[in-house]
Amino acid sequence: MAPIKLETRKLVDEFLDQYDYFLFDCDGVLWSGTQLLPYVCETLDMLRRLGKRIVFVTNNSTKSRTTYKKKLESMGIPAEIDEIFGSAYASAVYIKRVLKLPEDKKVYVIGESGIEEELAAEGVQYCGGTDPDERREMRPEDYDAMRPDPSVGAVLCGLDSHINYLKMCRAFQYLRDPDCLLLMTNTDSTYPTSGSLFPGAGSCSAPLRFATGREGKALGKPNPEMLDAIEAKFQFDKKKAVFIGDRLNTDIQFAHNSGMGGSLMVLTGVSSEADFSAKDAPVVPKYFIDRLGDLYTARQ
Amino acid sequence: MAPIKLETRKLVDEFLDQYDYFLFDCDGVLWSGTQLLPYVCETLDMLRRLGKRIVFVTNNSTKSRTTYKKKLESMGIPAEIDEIFGSAYASAVYIKRVLKLPEDKKVYVIGESGIEEELAAEGVQYCGGTDPDERREMRPEDYDAMRPDPSVGAVLCGLDSHINYLKMCRAFQYLRDPDCLLLMTNTDSTYPTSGSLFPGAGSCSAPLRFATGREGKALGKPNPEMLDAIEAKFQFDKKKAVFIGDRLNTDIQFAHNSGMGGSLMVLTGVSSEADFSAKDAPVVPKYFIDRLGDLYTARQ
Repeated sequence: MAPIKLETRKLVDEFLDQYDYFLFDCDGVLWSGTQLLPYVCETLDMLRRLGKRIVFVTNNSTKSRTTYKKKLESMGIPAEIDEIFGSAYASAVYIKRVLKLPEDKKVYVIGESGIEEELAAEGVQYCGGTDPDERREMRPEDYDAMRPDPSVGAVLCGLDSHINYLKMCRAFQYLRDPDCLLLMTNTDSTYPTSGSLFPGAGSCSAPLRFATGREGKALGKPNPEMLDAIEAKFQFDKKKAVFIGDRLNTDIQFAHNSGMGGSLMVLTGVSSEADFSAKDAPVVPKYFIDRLGDLYTARQ
Repeated sequence: MAPIKLETRKLVDEFLDQYDYFLFDCDGVLWSGTQLLPYVCETLDMLRRLGKRIVFVTNNSTKSRTTYKKKLESMGIPAEIDEIFGSAYASAVYIKRVLKLPEDKKVYVIGESGIEEELAAEGVQYCGGTDPDERREMRPEDYDAMRPDPSVGAVLCGLDSHINYLKMCRAFQYLRDPDCLLLMTNTDSTYPTSGSLFPGAGSCSAPLRFATGREGKALGKPNPEMLDAIEAKFQFDKKKAVFIGDRLNTDIQFAHNSGMGGSLMVLTGVSSEADFSAKDAPVVPKYFIDRLGDLYTARQ
């Protein structure tokens, strides 16, 4: 089925009537970089007034849910912790509740404070991360000192704007032990900010996958572990849920993989209309729209 | 054909009689880390006395041929510049003589001084590399300042023990221009040193390949560009050449890909006997031996 462009009030109303749960990707949908996109607050406010449940779903692993709530609020978007699902949170939940990592094992983190905060909240021990001793250059003596460490049960890699060769080497040494798991918050190849694209979490873990020959396991969109975390909270009927995102291979794929009722793609982020119009497009959205705020302006 | 282990004087003599050109990988064959392996100098001396031509072929991109000569000599191995072929040299030759990169274009380097020295020797302009402004953390203002640069005609990535997010972002921005080429000195997944393994040049370029979705072009072993550079110097009969290495998927693959007369694998480096004995081994050496020095000791 070709995607339907929501370009009239009638089409928008029919779209809104179908769903009770509106799951949003944030970067590229609500804002781009530090810039709130037009009519986003008005659209969210309209949805709340229509009795819709709003859920913010982000692969951004650099922020915990608590920090993400502050970011939403600083943009003028009111939000509750329970409405926010990040890949760092999904990863911590997976490590604690599914893997049941033994208490004497820790997680070596390549990533930022968001991962550390969510691991701490779940009571998972970690090392690496934002430790200043990780944010330095490799020294000659480091080569001799590095070895596998049986107390490290997993490496968890997210987006890390302080990634360096030292961290790559440490993670690689731990992963030479086949019992040490390679986990990734998500495998987004790029990260949209400042109106441009930068290497994403999946690019930060690419050296580890290449050096070890392992695929690793990703916990964020489009993987089902992310929806497991959301469903555990809301117990909703997936058919009454729609996912709204800007990226074909994570957001729209996630809606399809998880059997949600629908997907809406906005054109303010990574993917373009050409991407899903291509003959070999791996997945297409059910609906698309130039920008999220058009849901609001179409009804004025 | 199952590989033949050179474990008797007769087998060694038959092996030596077949070849005139002995091409050596260095790391893991001649030395491991900073440790010369046993009877290496005696073996090389024996080959020279037998009238064999010796060629040192290395994917190590961190050193220029001039620096590599010093390294060989510091290990007690006499060598001439013309006997040394490194992936940084093969890359510089390719950029200058095959690509014929226009003189107003430069190469953005992720790597160490070896690449810079070989590019300079070929008269290729470059940026990045060991510039101290590359060896720092990403700052908030960097996100806004980064953009493609039409004066950068190629990104060349080798092993870089100072790789960081800033370099990954700069390279990625340049590569968003489809006219900017992605070149790699080599795609070795790991790098053996200090008796252990560390992420190799291919792991350093993995983020760029993953973020851009491009394969890129590698110039070192096992790619034919490396042999092109060697043949241009010696014009030898490839059937009279044998490649001696420690790594199945670069060294032995290189001997096969390039149609050399034979290959000898030593077990002092990355690959083990189990690797080529495996049923699904992609390539097997013609000969193998525990360590290079056994060629010498077998004849005493």
